[in-house]
Order: sequence, then structure tokens, then C-alpha cells
Amino acid sequence: MIHQQYPSQLLEKAVQEFSRLPGIGRKTALRLVLHLLRQDVGDVEQFAEAIATMRREVKHCRVCHNISDSDLCPVCSDPRRDGSTVCVVENVQDVMAVENTQQYHGLYHVLGGIISPMDGIGPADLEIDSLVGRVAEGGIREVILALSPTMEGDTTNFYIYRKLAPLGIRVSVIARGISVGNELEYTDEVTLGRSILNRTLFDGK
Amino acid sequence: MIHQQYPSQLLEKAVQEFSRLPGIGRKTALRLVLHLLRQDVGDVEQFAEAIATMRREVKHCRVCHNISDSDLCPVCSDPRRDGSTVCVVENVQDVMAVENTQQYHGLYHVLGGIISPMDGIGPADLEIDSLVGRVAEGGIREVILALSPTMEGDTTNFYIYRKLAPLGIRVSVIARGISVGNELEYTDEVTLGRSILNRTLFDGK
Repeated sequence: MIHQQYPSQLLEKAVQEFSRLPGIGRKTALRLVLHLLRQDVGDVEQFAEAIATMRREVKHCRVCHNISDSDLCPVCSDPRRDGSTVCVVENVQDVMAVENTQQYHGLYHVLGGIISPMDGIGPADLEIDSLVGRVAEGGIREVILALSPTMEGDTTNFYIYRKLAPLGIRVSVIARGISVGNELEYTDEVTLGRSILNRTLFDGK
Repeated sequence: MIHQQYPSQLLEKAVQEFSRLPGIGRKTALRLVLHLLRQDVGDVEQFAEAIATMRREVKHCRVCHNISDSDLCPVCSDPRRDGSTVCVVENVQDVMAVENTQQYHGLYHVLGGIISPMDGIGPADLEIDSLVGRVAEGGIREVILALSPTMEGDTTNFYIYRKLAPLGIRVSVIARGISVGNELEYTDEVTLGRSILNRTLFDGK
């Protein structure tokens, strides 16, 4: 496509800003901007204000590093949560994914990434020291490693495990196996092999 | 999916605002918001400001009703454009689509929609009277109707044609036929039939 001529520089600027977002090309950006042009001025100002305010005021929890409106996130400040268990995740989305299962009632620790030498991300770039510090303070009996089952996830798991080993707590890793609802024949060999090795006793209930 | 629990109300508000945009669901909205959270505060404020400013300050050209930064759009105020030809389009995107062809050097008239009784849009909701007014002022020799080849487009074409007929100018409609690059066997019958009826002399150059 030849260079798009916009009839308005204000429009062009807005399209440019939108198309910087991941997964949004110039065509989609233009469609979104023209949609906003048809909305009430007040609604669009509210949209813009919500985004700017969010970026300016959202904090990170000083304990688990999850995003939060205050110094301590809703999970860390909830007295009903089990403070003896900490689930280690890569990012904020993963906290929400685990919360959505409604199967976990402990606390979290958000690493803010995963060890990935290819991307130049080492242990020092992640919230690993603060995790070790939390455990060293006492009160935590189990750390559950809930990172993605990739090479980088495994590397990070191993690194954290080595750091936590001297502290004598239980370190577990979330189960890997075939996905619920998936067809056995389409499951990859590594996953299927692991799920046989790590089989659990059949619960007849 | 169960109701998503967000760790921050500021985040939730921003996700809500994003997910009002067409084609953006809550998952995509969350991904966009978390992306913005990782950007510099200044960049995000610039994003928000560009959108709010665009909505507040973009005008519509008083002649052709295309969007514009000033009272008169860049096309209408360009002395090199052919003022004797006006191309009638449904919306702003269509102006850009025709401009991108680089085949048209006249002016435009943006209707702001198309006659659609099903959606409750009648001639009075569109910039049809202002088109007739422009033509009545004199100086325009041809009006090219460039609406979509749909029932609504045909209805609108016919309505405009009837309004312009007494003014004695040339009224043309963009050619309908098989798309360049398309396979003949996959072209629908109506299009193919029309393209035979409206065949043009082969230009051996």
C-alpha cells in the first residue's frame, strides 16, 4: 500500500499512537480512531483519562509485586489467604489465571519475567532475591513454582530451587500432563511421556 | 469464564474502557492495558492526550464534510484539484480509499452514511441537501457516485440521481465488474453478468 494520506494531522497522530499497540496495525488503528470520532467528546475524554490515570497511579505490591492500587495488593492484605504458601508466577496475567481457577488460596510472588539468556534477561532482572528474602523472613512453608513448561521456565525453576534449597522449605512445581478435554492422540510425546511417569493414584470418588 | 478479578480498580477501569472499542474483547483489552503499563508514563500520557485532543479538535470540512483540522479540508483547499468534478462517498475511509488509488483529482462529498430504512437512516440524515446545494451554486460539471454496490448503495444512488437530474449536470457511477486479480469462476453471477453488459472496448496498448 502506498503511504496513506490522512485528511487531518490530529487524526494521523491518534492513528500513529494506536498502531504502536501490540497486534494493532494501521488499518485497525484507523478503524478505532474513526469509531472514537463518532463517540461523545465526554466519553472519549473519559477513555483517555482512564488510561493516563491508570498508568500514573497503578502501583506494584511491595510484597508480591503484583499490580495494585495501594502499597499492599488485595491478595496480600486479605487475612483469609493462607500466608504459608507462595505461588511463583511470571507476570500479572498469570496471577489472574490462577485466581480464576478458584483452586488456590495462598499468596503470590510475581517475578516480572523469566530467565532468558537469549533475551538478555538474567536472575538479577527478576524479583528472585525478594522471593528468597520473603522466605528467609519465616512463615512460608511451601513455594509453588507455576512457570510455563518451557526451557526458560525450567531454567528459572531450577535457579529458584537452588536458591531456596538451603532454607529447608517445601518447593513444588505445578503438575504437567495432558490438558483436560484434550484428545490423547494429539498430545505431544514429551507431555504424554511425563504424564505417564508422573501418574497419580486413581481416586475412585 | 468466571468473572475476572482484577488486582486493581484503575486497571479494571482502563480494561473496561478499551473493551468498548469495536473488535476488542476483555482479553485483548487486558493485553493492551498491561502493555501500556510497561511503557513510560510520558508515552502513555501522550497516547491519551493524542486521542482526547483528536476528538475535541477535529472538524468537518464545511464544503465536503470530510474530517479536517480546519474549516476547509486539504482537498477542498488545494487549487490543483479539479473543482468541476465531485466524487460522492459514504464516509471518511472511502475518501482515503479513493485517494490511495491516485487516479482521482477532483473534489469529494462525504454523505456520512447511506440510505438504509432498516437502520432508520433516511435522506435527511445524510449530507444530500448540501450536495444539491453545492451543485446548484454552479461550477460542478460531473458528480461521480462512488457508493458500495449494495441495495442501500443503489437506493442512495437513485435518490441522489433524482435530486440532481433537474440541474442538468453529468451524473456517473463507478464501474462495477470483476475485481482485478480475481478468478472468473469465483465471481458471483450478478457481477459477472453486469461486467458482460458493461464491457468496454479492448485497448490494445
